Amino acid sequence: MNLLLLDPKNSVNDGGYALTERQQQHVSKVIKAVTGDVLRVGLLNGGIGEGVYQAADDKQPAYIHSLALSAKPPAPLPMVLVMALPRPNMLKRTLQNISAMGVKEIYLIHSAKVEKSYWQSPVLQQDSIQQSLLEGLEQAKDTVMPVCHMIPRFRPFVEDQLPAILAGKRGLLAHPYKAQVCPVAIEEPCVLALGPEGGWNEFEVTKWLAAGMESVHLGERILRVETVVPVLLSRLYPAGC
Amino acid sequence: MNLLLLDPKNSVNDGGYALTERQQQHVSKVIKAVTGDVLRVGLLNGGIGEGVYQAADDKQPAYIHSLALSAKPPAPLPMVLVMALPRPNMLKRTLQNISAMGVKEIYLIHSAKVEKSYWQSPVLQQDSIQQSLLEGLEQAKDTVMPVCHMIPRFRPFVEDQLPAILAGKRGLLAHPYKAQVCPVAIEEPCVLALGPEGGWNEFEVTKWLAAGMESVHLGERILRVETVVPVLLSRLYPAGC
Repeated sequence: MNLLLLDPKNSVNDGGYALTERQQQHVSKVIKAVTGDVLRVGLLNGGIGEGVYQAADDKQPAYIHSLALSAKPPAPLPMVLVMALPRPNMLKRTLQNISAMGVKEIYLIHSAKVEKSYWQSPVLQQDSIQQSLLEGLEQAKDTVMPVCHMIPRFRPFVEDQLPAILAGKRGLLAHPYKAQVCPVAIEEPCVLALGPEGGWNEFEVTKWLAAGMESVHLGERILRVETVVPVLLSRLYPAGC
Repeated sequence: MNLLLLDPKNSVNDGGYALTERQQQHVSKVIKAVTGDVLRVGLLNGGIGEGVYQAADDKQPAYIHSLALSAKPPAPLPMVLVMALPRPNMLKRTLQNISAMGVKEIYLIHSAKVEKSYWQSPVLQQDSIQQSLLEGLEQAKDTVMPVCHMIPRFRPFVEDQLPAILAGKRGLLAHPYKAQVCPVAIEEPCVLALGPEGGWNEFEVTKWLAAGMESVHLGERILRVETVVPVLLSRLYPAGC
């Protein structure tokens, strides 16, 4: 946790914000702060700066007050990431990493090679997803919460929603066949679509291409989703990660 | 497992190579091969191609024979990676990813902010390390086993070993202060040194710089080691990962 990210929902009486239990643990055990200490904090979807720590007492939990938030969060990556729903045991870490790297719009989509049971996993509940995204922000010292959409049906998304999302952006489909080499350091915003283990099937590729995506490949090596996400984001926007 | 990587140590009578238990499981359960099937295989530190599967019987374990290995493994990354020893629970995955991305020379080094106890972890035993590196190769369809050196003492390495390793290469020290922006898409080979959580301390930075390394930073975001490794490798050698 590199930034205490305060949630406006947790406001307390005197204009401060209560710490969550996790943040309280970090402040007590890692930072070892005492009442009156000035700590580096951010406000969710707001600025970054400092605030004064007030330890918990009988009446209220620990909180931060007298905030001075003059710095802006780091620039977001100018991209929309569409990815086939990863295995549940990979989802938490994947979302943390995506959030830490500055992606602000994520679509988790069904694909023929995604097991249907993945969509029933408890890690897909909004609370769990928000928590993973938040941990990514705290890691990277960012404040702007990404939006994560669930798309359990492939075809209506690609046919009906994608054209509007793609407007004004370059569409890149990670797909190893009939593809050009993935570009390096692009200037324009993009939509990047990453397939499941085993890749998109033929029908899906046809649909993506018909919607205006171009297929790109990364070379001979096959990397895991946890590796390919940072590799691709860094390749497309090396100055932004 | 995207490539069955055969070990020359496991040669059998008729010029074939026995499968390990893990490979046997993969062949039976995922590929579902039967005797006589032609499978895609590689030979450790050798070529890639095809071989014929022979199921296990009473006398011997399953093996692959009649190998035709005409393809070369993917090109390695032209770099030496020196990294502060990660937490034991991160080491296996980190080594898998580094191996999958094509790094062939790795130094795991002590640093002031690495807990001494990490050096006693069972995951540092050569068997465990070799297994992680092998799984990275199988993932990425590579055959060339990386070399991983253990450096439990910082100073003798940087003073005595580093100059020879650095000869003819660009030395890049990941360090967020007094640093230039990390270059993108370099042509020359490099030595990249990645610090522990919390970074290198002042003494260490002085030593690295005295040895001829230049310090580079990645921007405002602080990423975990599992994310920063693919981000940096892809940034330095976008065509190679």
